[in-house]
Amino acid sequence: MKNPKVVILGGGFAGIECAKAFKNKPVDVLLIDRQNHHLFQPLLYQVASAGLAAPEIAHPIRSIFFNQDNVETLMDEVTAFDLAGKKVVTREREIPYDYLVISMGVKTGYFGHHEWEQHARGLKTLDDATSIRRDILLAFEKAEACTGPEERRRLMTIAVIGGGPTGVELAGTFAELARHVLQRDFKNINTNEAKIYLIEGQDRLLTMYDPTLSDYTRKTLESMGVTVKLRNQVADLRAGEVVLKNETIKAANILWAAGVEAPAISRTLGVETDRAGRLLVETDLSLPGHPEVFVAGDLAHCVDQSGRLVPGLSPAAIQMGRHAAKVILEEINGTRSKDYDVRPQFRYFDKGSMATIGRSHAVAESMGMKFDGIIAWLMWLFIHLFFLVGFRNRLAVLVQWFYAYVRYRRGARIITGLHFPEK
Amino acid sequence: MKNPKVVILGGGFAGIECAKAFKNKPVDVLLIDRQNHHLFQPLLYQVASAGLAAPEIAHPIRSIFFNQDNVETLMDEVTAFDLAGKKVVTREREIPYDYLVISMGVKTGYFGHHEWEQHARGLKTLDDATSIRRDILLAFEKAEACTGPEERRRLMTIAVIGGGPTGVELAGTFAELARHVLQRDFKNINTNEAKIYLIEGQDRLLTMYDPTLSDYTRKTLESMGVTVKLRNQVADLRAGEVVLKNETIKAANILWAAGVEAPAISRTLGVETDRAGRLLVETDLSLPGHPEVFVAGDLAHCVDQSGRLVPGLSPAAIQMGRHAAKVILEEINGTRSKDYDVRPQFRYFDKGSMATIGRSHAVAESMGMKFDGIIAWLMWLFIHLFFLVGFRNRLAVLVQWFYAYVRYRRGARIITGLHFPEK
Repeated sequence: MKNPKVVILGGGFAGIECAKAFKNKPVDVLLIDRQNHHLFQPLLYQVASAGLAAPEIAHPIRSIFFNQDNVETLMDEVTAFDLAGKKVVTREREIPYDYLVISMGVKTGYFGHHEWEQHARGLKTLDDATSIRRDILLAFEKAEACTGPEERRRLMTIAVIGGGPTGVELAGTFAELARHVLQRDFKNINTNEAKIYLIEGQDRLLTMYDPTLSDYTRKTLESMGVTVKLRNQVADLRAGEVVLKNETIKAANILWAAGVEAPAISRTLGVETDRAGRLLVETDLSLPGHPEVFVAGDLAHCVDQSGRLVPGLSPAAIQMGRHAAKVILEEINGTRSKDYDVRPQFRYFDKGSMATIGRSHAVAESMGMKFDGIIAWLMWLFIHLFFLVGFRNRLAVLVQWFYAYVRYRRGARIITGLHFPEK
Repeated sequence: MKNPKVVILGGGFAGIECAKAFKNKPVDVLLIDRQNHHLFQPLLYQVASAGLAAPEIAHPIRSIFFNQDNVETLMDEVTAFDLAGKKVVTREREIPYDYLVISMGVKTGYFGHHEWEQHARGLKTLDDATSIRRDILLAFEKAEACTGPEERRRLMTIAVIGGGPTGVELAGTFAELARHVLQRDFKNINTNEAKIYLIEGQDRLLTMYDPTLSDYTRKTLESMGVTVKLRNQVADLRAGEVVLKNETIKAANILWAAGVEAPAISRTLGVETDRAGRLLVETDLSLPGHPEVFVAGDLAHCVDQSGRLVPGLSPAAIQMGRHAAKVILEEINGTRSKDYDVRPQFRYFDKGSMATIGRSHAVAESMGMKFDGIIAWLMWLFIHLFFLVGFRNRLAVLVQWFYAYVRYRRGARIITGLHFPEK
């Protein structure tokens, strides 16, 4: 008898953990991703700010499963779902499944203002990160050679939109990059004059954290030279300009960390979504009306046992991926019926969350406790190193971080992908 | 009195060493490069074959001179020379000079067959290297999902054209990549069936070395599974096809390591060039008729004291850069006249040369001695680590190599810069 076939869409945290949970089980797994690598997204901002090289936070998906015989990997992209026929259609073929796990994640979202995308880059992929790195380093190169003070100021201005963890991390790391790392490289410009704006619509940063931590974060960023603008919705974005209610900020680089949305294809599934397009799932993570289809990770709009929306964090994605695998395995083993009501509900175990602000500053909340300063930063460092996939990366990243910490340097401030037209 | 202004074009080995030689001297140096980084070209093939990440072999030019006050760095590109007016014209401005050092290097050359460029990538820049890495990893991904045996064979075939050091290094490293590193990642294809061709027009590889080393190199490559084709001129290149005299090789990836040529702009200088466009310089490295202009590095066609053409190797570039600086400084100090005849002749000190074939295999020649096998490989490893710019890179590279050596893995096999059209 053939093993049931589980198709997993997306090699992020949810997809990888789901596939791993089938190890040594009578299941054939096919993991499909558009990229050949699993990305350690929590450190993506470090690539953008020249702290780490791209391969240091990415790992080939194939090699994660090289010793798990029942997982095949396919680099391809899903173009359509055929839920009735239990098939997914990719660019190259049709793939039948017995169980489907949709863990494609989300992309940068602009609140419906798709025209803003060209003016403000999001940070979701390695290519986003290396493009941001290139554009920002390039702006400083231009500033160094620039003679007009106004244009120079514009080139040295970075506006980060969105005061969540990604925005805070980006603003903090770019402040450090400008004030410490680049400072000694440049001779004509004073990189201390670089302006970093962090723009947030609500009245505090990191709204999901305790207000005291929000306050600590703002003060720390300000002491690092970041201009924090709270209660400022973005009214419009134009090339090199952020329009707020009362002012317009001219910035050569505008980064968008204010929202995410589901990929367009997920809307073709015919199920209810939230405003960002995330799929409203049953309590067992299955798609309404399709007990053989599961949604795991950021793409799932899932309310947990306590009635709270499960956050879009890697620990939640990992737990969801494992839960989907568990439900599928129980059903294959015949230990549960297909009846929804008796399937185990997904229970989110909230280990806490953390955001780093800069060198030796971070905030963390866990089990009702709050942490800030160097303690939180060491927790952050330890946990992120621990979870980085693969020995090599862990060691190389540690070397880089140690070096960056001691010498205030960034090894990866290399501009690639820039093509002057041929002479 | 203002210091004399030295403009250096190109931040390769020649340009960097030339600028360094002006440390603490009464000279203002402006170093112009199209890129923001100095590239350790001898290890570029390691980025192409996923052994190293791009930033590990590159170093921001600015940071090389952060403690040398008289060097300014400009990321720009020269678009015209005005030798009579002692100016260079860049995309952005006109820059006057008292002394000019042209150290722009060479680019991949196709023996006049410019139409071949689209079918066979050369290896001269970081972007070349990451593109080669992407294309080759992608071909294996496609092969894994491919059902037709012929197409699968084509996808798993790499043809390297040119049996010099770069060609040998590429063929060797891709043979290892396919047979050891990728072997365990893929489940449908047997990467041992990957075909690596090394195609050379002459009757032996590494023609500049002793024939016994050429022979050792060929045998080593063959034992690694490389098909070495000697006495085979490329008759034509088409998309995915290398046409030789008696056969046509179908290869998804074709790499060109068979020649270099001068950038087009160097032909506008109005001096005699060799067939590859390299500038024929005086014995002091100055441009004929322009004692204030020097050519250093690969772009110089220079005959040394013993009547031999100075090879296009990094030690020669380094020595030329220093020589140009020495002549300029002697003139500024008034210790020599501008008269050509009394200027010191460039003397090439040939330390020897080496090429690596694969894990623990290399060949080297130095001071009339020949080395091969693991001895040559350890020499190669030591020398390349020693010369890598910057502590961080050296340590990170050592970690990577050690890990790759012990575990037969490549950490950087990440596909970036690939964009499926938006769904």
